[in-house]
Amino acid sequence: MSNTKLNIGLFGFGTVGKGLHEVLSKINLTDVQIKRVCIRDKSKKRDALLPFTDNAEDIFGDKEINFIVELIDDAEAAYLIVKRALISGIPVVSGNKKMLAYHLDELISLQKQYKTALLYDASACGSIPVIRNLEEYYNNELLTSVKGILNGSSNFILSKIFNEGMSYQDALKLAQRLGFAESNPTLDIDGWDSLFKLIIITVHAFGVYVRPDEIFNYGISSLNDNDIKFAEKEQRRIKLVACAEKAGDKLVLSVMPHLISKQKYIYSVEDEFNGVVIKGLFYYKQFMFGRGAGGYPTGSAVLSDITARLYDYKYEYKRQNAVRKLEYTTDVPVRIYFRYSDDKHLQLLDFENITEKYVSRQFCYVVGTVRLKQLHQKAEVLRKEDIFLSVYPEN
Amino acid sequence: MSNTKLNIGLFGFGTVGKGLHEVLSKINLTDVQIKRVCIRDKSKKRDALLPFTDNAEDIFGDKEINFIVELIDDAEAAYLIVKRALISGIPVVSGNKKMLAYHLDELISLQKQYKTALLYDASACGSIPVIRNLEEYYNNELLTSVKGILNGSSNFILSKIFNEGMSYQDALKLAQRLGFAESNPTLDIDGWDSLFKLIIITVHAFGVYVRPDEIFNYGISSLNDNDIKFAEKEQRRIKLVACAEKAGDKLVLSVMPHLISKQKYIYSVEDEFNGVVIKGLFYYKQFMFGRGAGGYPTGSAVLSDITARLYDYKYEYKRQNAVRKLEYTTDVPVRIYFRYSDDKHLQLLDFENITEKYVSRQFCYVVGTVRLKQLHQKAEVLRKEDIFLSVYPEN
Repeated sequence: MSNTKLNIGLFGFGTVGKGLHEVLSKINLTDVQIKRVCIRDKSKKRDALLPFTDNAEDIFGDKEINFIVELIDDAEAAYLIVKRALISGIPVVSGNKKMLAYHLDELISLQKQYKTALLYDASACGSIPVIRNLEEYYNNELLTSVKGILNGSSNFILSKIFNEGMSYQDALKLAQRLGFAESNPTLDIDGWDSLFKLIIITVHAFGVYVRPDEIFNYGISSLNDNDIKFAEKEQRRIKLVACAEKAGDKLVLSVMPHLISKQKYIYSVEDEFNGVVIKGLFYYKQFMFGRGAGGYPTGSAVLSDITARLYDYKYEYKRQNAVRKLEYTTDVPVRIYFRYSDDKHLQLLDFENITEKYVSRQFCYVVGTVRLKQLHQKAEVLRKEDIFLSVYPEN
Repeated sequence: MSNTKLNIGLFGFGTVGKGLHEVLSKINLTDVQIKRVCIRDKSKKRDALLPFTDNAEDIFGDKEINFIVELIDDAEAAYLIVKRALISGIPVVSGNKKMLAYHLDELISLQKQYKTALLYDASACGSIPVIRNLEEYYNNELLTSVKGILNGSSNFILSKIFNEGMSYQDALKLAQRLGFAESNPTLDIDGWDSLFKLIIITVHAFGVYVRPDEIFNYGISSLNDNDIKFAEKEQRRIKLVACAEKAGDKLVLSVMPHLISKQKYIYSVEDEFNGVVIKGLFYYKQFMFGRGAGGYPTGSAVLSDITARLYDYKYEYKRQNAVRKLEYTTDVPVRIYFRYSDDKHLQLLDFENITEKYVSRQFCYVVGTVRLKQLHQKAEVLRKEDIFLSVYPEN
């Protein structure tokens, strides 16, 4: 591919697609151009002079198009595009984390089978080059954990609550008004977006693919004033943390709110920013921080994936070839803060020990240890009831 | 080089060389081994079972050695080793920032001429993958600045002063006792080490090579209690900051103490850590943080360079091919805090405006704007006199 001009067939022209187009028009890359854009609704007015089409065949049938960039919302449609590109031997960049989280295992096989590259650095943490760094730079490192704030919308809301004393509802509305949260914010606020990114990151950090339904994720939508007060009394902040961590020769994954103390790096990750802490045996720890979303940062990250192909870059998935693969488990203890209003909620979980208990007419909470496995088994009901839970680390 | 075993000829077995050896023996890399180690003093007792030699010909003459790693202190000797390796077509990794800062221009040409790779990510910021990221990931980014704390020893000293109220002398002694500062700490404390790293980073960030003697660098060795009190009164901390920054179509470089306010990321970079803030037009800003020195972190970074070669990785120096190259300048204003004891010191510089002036029998200071060019011209005398100066940004 080196020294060949990239003629891009672009699918989708939302925030990121537009961001990519604008970044491309501001910098002068003679060897990269968007040849055609496939969108769902051709009648919609667009403020860009590009050849639009609503027919995918106009891209796959164009012999001059030697590169596909997929930036659409619909995960299943994105999957079909990426799969078709790989099978046709056309290198492809995707930004669809949901699609990747569900299909990465198969897409890795397809890359090998058809010797065609799929890149997706922009899919996890926007402008922070987490995947590329894990893949390239930490490849000798005996990694022990990757933890981070991977979702900007929920972090924006939590920042407004803890820094500016906003209520959850007001913070959510502000996030929506500023475009940080979708009109249906479930993906962001209930931890799904973080979960998808965590799955992708884990493949590159630990060489293990785990399906979304095998991982416990719990968001911040049931957070209330009592939880905020509890955190503040403890001089902590609540952050939504995605976590991949070694425990012996096992691997533990979760997306949960954490009560974070001041001395932790991610305590200071504010607003719509993302931050990732990578710990390894030799490096001690590394912290990367930047914009996780938005048209320009993400468009620019997509462009990094595109130009990487000018140098024939592909992911090697080196850790998947490790001799001793880590086994995924949820059978580990986790210390949580658990706020509830009715004793029946407390009966949902078998606390192994309770070190703190508070009861009042307004609300109750306990601090104690449960098995992550049980949280996962009870995930549905935990999400529905009038409760809130958060990891509460000792330090 | 792919799928070929790397037989390494290693020069030097100090902290980093030993770190590399230990990292290598803890992880299981079947395709990388240290074949022979060339050291200055063969009689010195070493606690490693490796074939040592004091004759470079034992490495260059060994046909099985297909990779050179240079980790010695002596910059001129390091230069000769790296040059010989490149001319002989043997890929080489170097950790010698001083050597690179003085010879990078020629070494880039030699790489092209002999189609042989030189990698040196470990030379700037130890475990933080700054160079690789600038080279690979930010390559489409219209970068505006790269600023950072690039020297762990001086930062350790400043942290002890500002966090624990230690005197400069005590902090320096502690740094030396803990092995963070050399017995002759000039390189670290007077900003030379940061300067060398800045030069290397600038080549990859902006495609411009500037010689060390063309850049103003000023360290922290004349810092005294009055300066510390001034900083604390202003709720700032003094940090030694290396800075590469665009000013229009010009490029400005410097290494100077900065009075850093709380809201800046590098305010919180403590102890022996390094932190780098990369700003770009589309990414807004990115922050990377980690261990900048020490045997394991740096040895591990060297190993990342080594294994990158298993995948034929080389720096592309893409920005050096930019159509419009930035022109280096020192002809820019800089707002400084300038502490002195004698009026003759104030006469050294033509302040363009002075917004603050304090005079007492113990010490005096002004806050005002000077040309960076003049600081550079007067560097010798500024370093000698009983004065201290620091960049004092408006916010």
